[in-house]
Amino acid sequence: MHSVHFTAETSLNGVVERDFTVGEVPGVLFSPASGSDPAPLVLMAHSGGQHKRAPGIVGRAHRFVTCCGFAVAAIDAPGHGDRPRTTEFEQRVAALRQAQSAGEPVTAIVVDLHTYLAERAVPEWRVTLDALRELPQIGTEGPVGFWGIMQGTGIGVPLTAAEPRISAAVFGCLGHESLTEAAAQITVPIEFLLQWDDELLARESGLALFDAFASKQKTLHANAGGHFEVPRFEVDSATRFFARHLGQAVRSPA
Amino acid sequence: MHSVHFTAETSLNGVVERDFTVGEVPGVLFSPASGSDPAPLVLMAHSGGQHKRAPGIVGRAHRFVTCCGFAVAAIDAPGHGDRPRTTEFEQRVAALRQAQSAGEPVTAIVVDLHTYLAERAVPEWRVTLDALRELPQIGTEGPVGFWGIMQGTGIGVPLTAAEPRISAAVFGCLGHESLTEAAAQITVPIEFLLQWDDELLARESGLALFDAFASKQKTLHANAGGHFEVPRFEVDSATRFFARHLGQAVRSPA
Repeated sequence: MHSVHFTAETSLNGVVERDFTVGEVPGVLFSPASGSDPAPLVLMAHSGGQHKRAPGIVGRAHRFVTCCGFAVAAIDAPGHGDRPRTTEFEQRVAALRQAQSAGEPVTAIVVDLHTYLAERAVPEWRVTLDALRELPQIGTEGPVGFWGIMQGTGIGVPLTAAEPRISAAVFGCLGHESLTEAAAQITVPIEFLLQWDDELLARESGLALFDAFASKQKTLHANAGGHFEVPRFEVDSATRFFARHLGQAVRSPA
Repeated sequence: MHSVHFTAETSLNGVVERDFTVGEVPGVLFSPASGSDPAPLVLMAHSGGQHKRAPGIVGRAHRFVTCCGFAVAAIDAPGHGDRPRTTEFEQRVAALRQAQSAGEPVTAIVVDLHTYLAERAVPEWRVTLDALRELPQIGTEGPVGFWGIMQGTGIGVPLTAAEPRISAAVFGCLGHESLTEAAAQITVPIEFLLQWDDELLARESGLALFDAFASKQKTLHANAGGHFEVPRFEVDSATRFFARHLGQAVRSPA
């Protein structure tokens, strides 16, 4: 079994950020600067072309830590951030760029890319989760949440379907019938983001994925605006969602 | 012009409740027990068969007052609560009950009832708003929000379309093409609730009404569950929505 190897540590605004590796997967663990009780863990998966320290990840991770005392782990997806890019990955990305430049439909290429990534990322996340729960500040008993939109949903839906330790998840800004089967296996509480005027995702496709989750508690947050215009207040909503379902009090107004 | 006549006052948990009339319309004004600064005003319209002191109104009103220091006004819709029931109103309610008992479609009857009510309630709300803003604790300058789902949306959508002083509104659990034209005139921020498994409202109908609002800032909150199962945490969300758009800080974690 792999362990967490910490490689660097910084501290900012009450949040300790520790770079780590689990096997060959690099990640960052965000946790409260004070306090030693085991904390609920939130796993964060970045979007396509992004990485574990993308601003959208770091900003949300800090909110989750400071508002609720969560520990938050982000890792690089295969081919992203500090990770090597395989020929298969490069070919898929090149096909995507080519189709985008030509103004051709990209859905089939994105689905193929996400499927390729999820096949690799789901076992990586599970090994990383095993290792993180060996840390005393997290522990083997605490609840685990998942946050990931766009490509993070492409990886997160099959991960959450496969991983019984994840007890609440935020997904969104993605939808395709290739995810329906995994979504139908998910019964934990879900918050699902959708951009009502998404120029990259058919509205019906996102609504259909939300509909597919078997969860008795699921909430769709659809906001006016385009694909990259998810409103900032949805961070607060995700914070409260995790606070409700992972059993932490909100320390400051979120 | 009508004035506010206060008829009774009680105080509970930091909230003063004052019964009032404006002309022949009875209402309740909820406001903070302490503090004398002019406060933003939230108008609350109850659902069908309910009244100004229905538990769903009083509970939410208390949250709006204690979390944000808002003043909140609820009035009885025509034929509801302490108000006389006209023959026209009685006939419509009887037709609704009969169709419900027979298991027949009720949509056309509900639309007719809401139209009947809105024709009367919209001018009543506007006169009530005029009178409330003469009170020093509210004032003529402060922002105004509207909250009303189900029948409250049937009245609130035409009211918000007609009333430029309303600058943010929460609607939901209703949808019909009879409201599309008014919705398309509304440009203020909207939070719209929808029950994903609503047994009384076709999902497409609710989504279509949300789609019809011209507002650049609008958010759909669709929750798993039936018509009467709106989750309690939506009260917190509405509180923060009004705090954002009516310019108040959230005093306690909502």
